Amino acid sequence: MITVLRIGHRIARDKRVTTHVALVARAFGAEQIFIDTLDKKLEENINLTCSRFGGNFKIKTGVNPKKILKQWHGSIIHLTMYGETLDRSIKKIDKKTNLLIVIGAEKVPAYIYEMADQNISIGNQPHSEVAALAIFLDRYNEGKWLKNRFNGKIQIQPSNKGKKVISKEKLV
Amino acid sequence: MITVLRIGHRIARDKRVTTHVALVARAFGAEQIFIDTLDKKLEENINLTCSRFGGNFKIKTGVNPKKILKQWHGSIIHLTMYGETLDRSIKKIDKKTNLLIVIGAEKVPAYIYEMADQNISIGNQPHSEVAALAIFLDRYNEGKWLKNRFNGKIQIQPSNKGKKVISKEKLV
Repeated sequence: MITVLRIGHRIARDKRVTTHVALVARAFGAEQIFIDTLDKKLEENINLTCSRFGGNFKIKTGVNPKKILKQWHGSIIHLTMYGETLDRSIKKIDKKTNLLIVIGAEKVPAYIYEMADQNISIGNQPHSEVAALAIFLDRYNEGKWLKNRFNGKIQIQPSNKGKKVISKEKLV
Repeated sequence: MITVLRIGHRIARDKRVTTHVALVARAFGAEQIFIDTLDKKLEENINLTCSRFGGNFKIKTGVNPKKILKQWHGSIIHLTMYGETLDRSIKKIDKKTNLLIVIGAEKVPAYIYEMADQNISIGNQPHSEVAALAIFLDRYNEGKWLKNRFNGKIQIQPSNKGKKVISKEKLV
């Protein structure tokens, strides 16, 4: 089971970026996301996407990151531009245990680096925690996220031109 | 040469997400980004990152997307959750010509779908244009972005614990 822990979320500043982090977690094969700051609006938005597009993804905001890290049974990976290279690190992850992926916003407290089993960089250039999470999950599940079936009320059919949408939503 | 065209940018709403798009473009191997809305602050931020972390990435805001699309010599790819699957589409791109990658914010005008040579989806689930761009560029350049050298004044050394930074910046 893959869980994402988003820390340093500030409601006004990070509204969109944290939404992207949560949607990437869901689309790329994580089962749940924890977010440190309580944000009911964000929970609502993600739950609405899940109820329309399917799957069993869970979101919980207002969690204590230190407590989650301390009590975690499994591997803890922190994604950071300062970390060890992806190619080298990913081989060391035990895929049979639960995985917790920690994603920071701006500055990350030192205890995260300490408590993580591995600090992993998705390249050592500044870019985006959204991209870092996507690339990490893509490598971790070896591209299998593309084959996930969510069986949602809304399903999109790939198309080179225009939009092909199958919707089982009731019109209200 | 790879260029990213970001459309539908709204300064207040998309400040952070468009910054992430630009930084991903740079880190994952694009040479420049065009953004429809004039946003000098965003240009400054990205140029500051480039001057510190190196490379020759260029940003220009306040462009006319339709004009760029009309005058483009090369391939035009639009990334959208409604598009054709990545694995099938990516083989059709002529790698010898210039590539323009169009990335929308919320709703994308219909002419983009029409003027693009290919509309490509990075999975057909809702997630993030930041993640879509990263995964697309990763596949397009077959992971070579990880080997790019930027020769910046600031260079980060991969490390499993802590931060190893080599800085040639003058202290002022």
